[in-house]
Amino acid sequence: MTPLKIGIAGLGTVGAGTARLLADNAALIATRAGRPITLTAVSARDKSRDRGIALTGITWHDDALALAADPNVDVVVELIGGSDGPAKALVEAAIAAGRPVVTANKALLAIHGTALAAAAEAAGLPLGFEAAVAGGIPVIKLLREGLAANRVSRVAGILNGTCNYILTTMREEGRDFPEVLADAQALGYAEADPAFDIEGVDAAHKLTILAALAFGQNVDFSAVHIEGIRNISALDISFAEELGYRIKLLGIAQQTPSGVSMRVHPAMVPVSKLLAAVEGVFNAVLMEGDFSGPVFCQGRGAGAGPTASAVVADLIDIARGSKIPVWGAAQAALAPSRPVAISALTGAYYLRLMVTDQPGVLADVTAILRDHGISLESMLQHGRSPGEAVPIVLVTHDTIEAAISAAISRIATLDCVLETPALIRIEPK
Amino acid sequence: MTPLKIGIAGLGTVGAGTARLLADNAALIATRAGRPITLTAVSARDKSRDRGIALTGITWHDDALALAADPNVDVVVELIGGSDGPAKALVEAAIAAGRPVVTANKALLAIHGTALAAAAEAAGLPLGFEAAVAGGIPVIKLLREGLAANRVSRVAGILNGTCNYILTTMREEGRDFPEVLADAQALGYAEADPAFDIEGVDAAHKLTILAALAFGQNVDFSAVHIEGIRNISALDISFAEELGYRIKLLGIAQQTPSGVSMRVHPAMVPVSKLLAAVEGVFNAVLMEGDFSGPVFCQGRGAGAGPTASAVVADLIDIARGSKIPVWGAAQAALAPSRPVAISALTGAYYLRLMVTDQPGVLADVTAILRDHGISLESMLQHGRSPGEAVPIVLVTHDTIEAAISAAISRIATLDCVLETPALIRIEPK
Repeated sequence: MTPLKIGIAGLGTVGAGTARLLADNAALIATRAGRPITLTAVSARDKSRDRGIALTGITWHDDALALAADPNVDVVVELIGGSDGPAKALVEAAIAAGRPVVTANKALLAIHGTALAAAAEAAGLPLGFEAAVAGGIPVIKLLREGLAANRVSRVAGILNGTCNYILTTMREEGRDFPEVLADAQALGYAEADPAFDIEGVDAAHKLTILAALAFGQNVDFSAVHIEGIRNISALDISFAEELGYRIKLLGIAQQTPSGVSMRVHPAMVPVSKLLAAVEGVFNAVLMEGDFSGPVFCQGRGAGAGPTASAVVADLIDIARGSKIPVWGAAQAALAPSRPVAISALTGAYYLRLMVTDQPGVLADVTAILRDHGISLESMLQHGRSPGEAVPIVLVTHDTIEAAISAAISRIATLDCVLETPALIRIEPK
Repeated sequence: MTPLKIGIAGLGTVGAGTARLLADNAALIATRAGRPITLTAVSARDKSRDRGIALTGITWHDDALALAADPNVDVVVELIGGSDGPAKALVEAAIAAGRPVVTANKALLAIHGTALAAAAEAAGLPLGFEAAVAGGIPVIKLLREGLAANRVSRVAGILNGTCNYILTTMREEGRDFPEVLADAQALGYAEADPAFDIEGVDAAHKLTILAALAFGQNVDFSAVHIEGIRNISALDISFAEELGYRIKLLGIAQQTPSGVSMRVHPAMVPVSKLLAAVEGVFNAVLMEGDFSGPVFCQGRGAGAGPTASAVVADLIDIARGSKIPVWGAAQAALAPSRPVAISALTGAYYLRLMVTDQPGVLADVTAILRDHGISLESMLQHGRSPGEAVPIVLVTHDTIEAAISAAISRIATLDCVLETPALIRIEPK
């Protein structure tokens, strides 16, 4: 059979892993794809670097754009990364040249996914991005095809392994964020510049993609409310444990009567829930379909092997002639997103205050909560240190976020409140 | 767009659920499938029964075979059940008439899957069976497409919700099998004739299908070692808990140097493992790919909604023109199964004996184990009742199953051993 000829742009961890997978499992892949899938060309910055893969007989292009024009390339695999610049230029050039594209680039898809899908659809080309979300978990396929018959009400996931590793380690070792981050960087679990991960941007890119598939809407990254994990303290993790929760950075997209709420933020997850038990670098996604019921999937969210597994799954689909629309439906059938502001969210909240231990503090705080119509489910205060700073934890009943925000602004102005209050949303039991 | 016209044979819980899903989510399904999917004909035994679905304008056939010949049916959905008889006749007739088939029938696929796939392949027709395994979890798609690039080393699953419900309830309520089964039957979680479920046959059908996909082999139901849960006692469940395990009915297909081991049996699962936490009627599957790493998926394994979700996912794939080979590769590329006998299995074992509490019992038992080269990791005996019957629990180090079987045969003949010894395989930590 005629091989499907692959050109890979970007030979970092994932690019080298994809080349290795195509070589190691070549026979098995040919059987499943119906024909061989062969690496014929690559492009990367430094030709001399040893990547542990044999590049004999494979065309080297210094310029990634040349892959789109190489007559010996049937499918372009974009593993450069970044939402704009060379990655975007390459994907556009490949589609313009009539070549299917497979990419692991969540930023590109989350920001330019509508335009790129429209171009691919107009050209009658597949555009695969299984590797863009949750690595080794085939969650794109699960949501777009496996649950295609369902009206999805909610998708919630642990979508960033770096954050989950840091939060897990903070809990297990009782240590604070800055030192655990430094350790994670030393171990290679966090980037030298960790901002995209720990500020929630990477998770928000992935959530944008999942929300588009789940709700049949155009990608709308700008509508995602994003908070990272910088402000999570060992103290809050310890209080969470006492209250029966684990703190996780969740990405949540949820249908509400007024539109789709999309948000990435730390959340208190009841320990009895599947997402609470996802530890370390693992990713997981929980999808709620109206007929399927809940479907939960957990696996490795990053790394050479899992990401390569997803890239090559897309290549096999293309070799088999799969014709699934990029976003699960024709572009014309997708709706603009109807985002709901985070201020309209309803839920329970964890509020931790550092206060001076003196009479009347709780009366002042609870009076403000009462004035905003917020009632409390529980309160925690350990020990007594008259005149010293002590933490007080308040757990609210369900309330609207606008109310708790307004209440906190006032609470923060009280003389007895010594630090910016910590607010963490609580997932339903 | 021209609708895809569907004929459903069998209007039990799943058939009625599928009709309801096609009606309830018609607009969404049309968007995702690229054209409407319309129910045009049905067949069932009793036309007068109220199934809560509108059948106005839908052709009724008293004979299921007539669906295969109905010119107003594009795809035949077989929901009759049973490995032979009318279900098999209908699927064969539909393929012979050039009509794609979607079925939820695990028995049919596990036993006749090779011949049916060959017929479908020869006719160039899809044969969908997502609904045959694990209901609402799209595990067929996950394994066949999502993990297609991987060499799979092991698939392990909780594949029968009835058994898992019974085991969960026995543990939570400390009750024994017969009364929990009776309750499950009263609640509709177990069939009036529960044999297929509780004896492990249903799980073995599903495991046969997963093994064929995972290892690129022909279905080989007869090679699956099958044990059910009838002999699991509340006492063993309680000892399991003490030792840090939960007892689950697992289906396991595993690559070994000498072939693929396929087995369904109760197993002690370490409480730290994901499969140990799957409770009640839920199903779950853990797949190990060489590049993806472990992928775990949990969801509702049965019932009208989840099964209908899977049936309609297959219909959407067919409407989209998907051309995945039935078993993930061309029939000619599938290997015969190379089954490994259970006697060649290596692992740790839980052994519970009811013995007369008298001096020398343990010496006799451990001498036999020593003679068979079996060493012990731990031993449990609670309290003392000289002259009375007491349970002794022995946990072995890894050993070959042939050795433990031989040892037990000898142990069972000791005068001080009062009942057939209970043996439960232990999953690795």
